[in-house]
Amino acid sequence: MITVLAGGVGAARFLRGLMQVVPPTDITAIVNTADDTVMHGLHISPDLDTVTYTLAGAIDPERGWGLRDESWRAMEALARFVPVRPPRSSAAPTWFNLGDQDLATHFYRTARLAEGASLSEVTGEISHAFGLHVRLLPMCDERVETRVTVVGEGEISFQEYFVQRHHDVPVSAVRFVGADEAVLTGSAARALMGADAIVIAPSNPLVSIGPLRALAGVDTALSARRQSVVAVSPIVGGAALKGPADRMMLELGHEPTVVGVARLYAPIASSLVIDPVDAHLADQVEATGMRAIVVPSVMTTPEISAALARATLRAAGVA
Amino acid sequence: MITVLAGGVGAARFLRGLMQVVPPTDITAIVNTADDTVMHGLHISPDLDTVTYTLAGAIDPERGWGLRDESWRAMEALARFVPVRPPRSSAAPTWFNLGDQDLATHFYRTARLAEGASLSEVTGEISHAFGLHVRLLPMCDERVETRVTVVGEGEISFQEYFVQRHHDVPVSAVRFVGADEAVLTGSAARALMGADAIVIAPSNPLVSIGPLRALAGVDTALSARRQSVVAVSPIVGGAALKGPADRMMLELGHEPTVVGVARLYAPIASSLVIDPVDAHLADQVEATGMRAIVVPSVMTTPEISAALARATLRAAGVA
Repeated sequence: MITVLAGGVGAARFLRGLMQVVPPTDITAIVNTADDTVMHGLHISPDLDTVTYTLAGAIDPERGWGLRDESWRAMEALARFVPVRPPRSSAAPTWFNLGDQDLATHFYRTARLAEGASLSEVTGEISHAFGLHVRLLPMCDERVETRVTVVGEGEISFQEYFVQRHHDVPVSAVRFVGADEAVLTGSAARALMGADAIVIAPSNPLVSIGPLRALAGVDTALSARRQSVVAVSPIVGGAALKGPADRMMLELGHEPTVVGVARLYAPIASSLVIDPVDAHLADQVEATGMRAIVVPSVMTTPEISAALARATLRAAGVA
Repeated sequence: MITVLAGGVGAARFLRGLMQVVPPTDITAIVNTADDTVMHGLHISPDLDTVTYTLAGAIDPERGWGLRDESWRAMEALARFVPVRPPRSSAAPTWFNLGDQDLATHFYRTARLAEGASLSEVTGEISHAFGLHVRLLPMCDERVETRVTVVGEGEISFQEYFVQRHHDVPVSAVRFVGADEAVLTGSAARALMGADAIVIAPSNPLVSIGPLRALAGVDTALSARRQSVVAVSPIVGGAALKGPADRMMLELGHEPTVVGVARLYAPIASSLVIDPVDAHLADQVEATGMRAIVVPSVMTTPEISAALARATLRAAGVA
């Protein structure tokens, strides 16, 4: 059994590779939900959806998020309301694109949550609807909300930072509101404790894996199983493969390299998978107390993804 | 100033005729909101939307509801979740069609209500977005919910009756949950008291006009102004022009004719507009204490609608 700590796009691609190497039913992904947001009254779970759509082969390959063959009629129609909303209203947020087909997922999630179902239950149902055999678990059933402090502006929501500001504004702090009261779900805790290997996917260490680690007991559990925990660096050649991980690490005082990633993960993981382009930093990675595993980790083909997954499992002592 | 008590399709068509006869800015419509429902977490106001879309020329002319040139991608995608929802769940209600463009209206309404705006405010904003000059007012800002008792089944929501059961199941009772605590909005009350004429649109007397009359003080206000109140019969030749008014009247103990309509409205309106096909019932209408005005009232052309509006206003003593 393999358990993967997952954010969005990078984790989804890693999981897709992993599915080629081990049976999907042996894989559990514990997914960040601190990016979740409510828009138009709809509960949106971007990382869960990205993983679901990717593993179902339904993701739009160009965008990397949302469904393929998507249309945008609802969003286009929403523009009509922008001129009439009052000055301080944030209704009609046309900056946050939701495709017409994608909406159905949010409709279902919202309706089920309103009926009293937990996010875990609903996530199971949605992944079943998409035919997944990998088990997807939200990190918690409570609401945790990443808040980002933007220099000169103040605190905004993660989606405002990520989508509305195109993650190109300087950040001075990140916090996870609600994380103190939230708990890793029982299923997720069991998946951590019972796994043969635990993989920290190539996701943003601060805002994708960070919320998971902010839940009580997670870092303790991971460090207790440190020999079986392997992280895959989301930073390659000093740059994030996707998203703002590099800039955000720099702005928040971490070196935006595999060495910076290693310092963040050394207490909880025994190995860090880095790309050959960073092979010259392997010694510095190992100086943090992590073993450096050098494997191509830019997942541009299914073969590279599968090889990366295989090497990652090997580093964790399985396969 | 003309104030119209309105349901959905019939009222919308009457208002469209009225707009040809008096300046739209002189017209206020007080619209039934007891059909409102929450689906997928979205606040849906069917009668308000039907009136808005009709007066904006944006209604689908064939269906009579929803927007023209509509697409249904979100609804189609929702079908994916039907097989995975638990037995007692009512998530993924694919029987209630919401077009992709139409969704934007519900998104905006839901977001604004969540921000603390009243339904009156949001309705004003939405009708402004659609370029309306007629003033649309929801009957109240509180939630009132029509519940329909279906013989042999029990009580269901109005939309379950109207849409899911295609309003072809026998009804034994109707009630308006919340009507006791709800109040006609201040704007609506002023529009009733200050109007030169008050028109009860050709809407279902029981479930469209009924909720309005269930609000405290409305019948009293109307009867005090009875000489200026004219109703247009939604029943022509013993049949409803649209919807289940005829069967529902019969099932709830009212004669499904213009005479039955007259008995319902005689306490609050001085005249009833009836179609020539019902001219032979004019005496029976007048026996209820209402004046019968015989005018073609099947609004198949703009000319008929305008003539109907003109005759209605004349009956109220204006124009």
